[in-house]
Amino acid sequence: MFSSDAADPTTVLTKSERTRAALRGIALRSFRERGYDATTIRLIAQEADVSVGTTHYHFASKNHLVQELYLDVQERHRDAAEPALAASTDLIDRLAIVYRTGLDQLTPFHAFAPEFLSAAVSPRSPINPLSPESAPALQVIEGLFREAVDGAAGAPLPDEFRASLPDALVLGHLLLALFWVYDRSPGQQRTRTLLDRGLRLLRLALPLTRLPLLRTPLRELLDLVASVKA
Amino acid sequence: MFSSDAADPTTVLTKSERTRAALRGIALRSFRERGYDATTIRLIAQEADVSVGTTHYHFASKNHLVQELYLDVQERHRDAAEPALAASTDLIDRLAIVYRTGLDQLTPFHAFAPEFLSAAVSPRSPINPLSPESAPALQVIEGLFREAVDGAAGAPLPDEFRASLPDALVLGHLLLALFWVYDRSPGQQRTRTLLDRGLRLLRLALPLTRLPLLRTPLRELLDLVASVKA
Repeated sequence: MFSSDAADPTTVLTKSERTRAALRGIALRSFRERGYDATTIRLIAQEADVSVGTTHYHFASKNHLVQELYLDVQERHRDAAEPALAASTDLIDRLAIVYRTGLDQLTPFHAFAPEFLSAAVSPRSPINPLSPESAPALQVIEGLFREAVDGAAGAPLPDEFRASLPDALVLGHLLLALFWVYDRSPGQQRTRTLLDRGLRLLRLALPLTRLPLLRTPLRELLDLVASVKA
Repeated sequence: MFSSDAADPTTVLTKSERTRAALRGIALRSFRERGYDATTIRLIAQEADVSVGTTHYHFASKNHLVQELYLDVQERHRDAAEPALAASTDLIDRLAIVYRTGLDQLTPFHAFAPEFLSAAVSPRSPINPLSPESAPALQVIEGLFREAVDGAAGAPLPDEFRASLPDALVLGHLLLALFWVYDRSPGQQRTRTLLDRGLRLLRLALPLTRLPLLRTPLRELLDLVASVKA
């Protein structure tokens, strides 16, 4: 199937690449429109008008296509966050941008979120967000939070806090997404409120890291949160 | 099948009750030994030497048997925690007792924890710990945390903190159990360490609730945590 009748070997490559891109596009649309459970390799092959074997050649399983979805969502997240980050140097405002644009990307999937969660939550699942298979997508979001922290001007937090902060923020993002799956309020407004309250609290707490009395408990708290993700 | 040959109607009831108890016992043992996925109504019926129909008469589905398991685990938890609670009036020590005896009850299930989590994590699942179906088991653990807080002598925390504390503590218990599912360290030692660090932090933070400067942010933090569970 991947031997071509064309003489030019670049044509061969291009055809395979085109097939792969078509399968990927159909799968991403299917996850958005049908969810996780109803999306099957067979259905994707059918809609791309190629064989199941060809589909498996490009994507060994449905979960490999979920990884494409994760990457797609995180790249859209980065594309939405970065222009907004360029406009602010306040740390809390920058974190608000990353968290809010992250929720925006999840929104279209809310109806299917429980089935994605069931499939992804097991530590043995290859589509668990913390699995080795999901590392490329997780790195995008880790990079975004590091960028949000590093690009803040006049950051009020001591260096000892700066190091574990991105890990703690990524864990916060995963827990916020977990809360969002359970959120039945219109437009998941409760999740937005929870985020706003969390950010307000962080704004109150960060200057306290300079008080000697509080430095130890706050440092403990941050280390505790960061250690959970590690 | 439920009409008896015996004349005495109490015999009928007793036989039905005995069948129910036998099915329940076999199911609880099966969940402990085989896990969630491999336990089926058919298998339980077979081992109890009754028909699948009889089994369904007593327990409409496998998930009804999981609710029996939840209750069994929480009642064992209460039985383990209460004698220890009687021996201490320090708030943090009392919380340590409830959290530690809770983890003790989970320990035998660790090998099967990922499959229980996958089945229970969806907000649509009837065995989700926060579902209406799971309310009786959740009430046992809520009662335990309330007891731990209310029975503490010379509690250092103002009344405004006392009210939302049990809800926040139950949420902490659920999140600790989530972390425990992911914990691959021998004997889930990392979960115990996380718990110890969390309790140490709580011991540092509680006296701070009396400082006017910190009362607002700490109250905010507690309300935030409690609002997640509500």
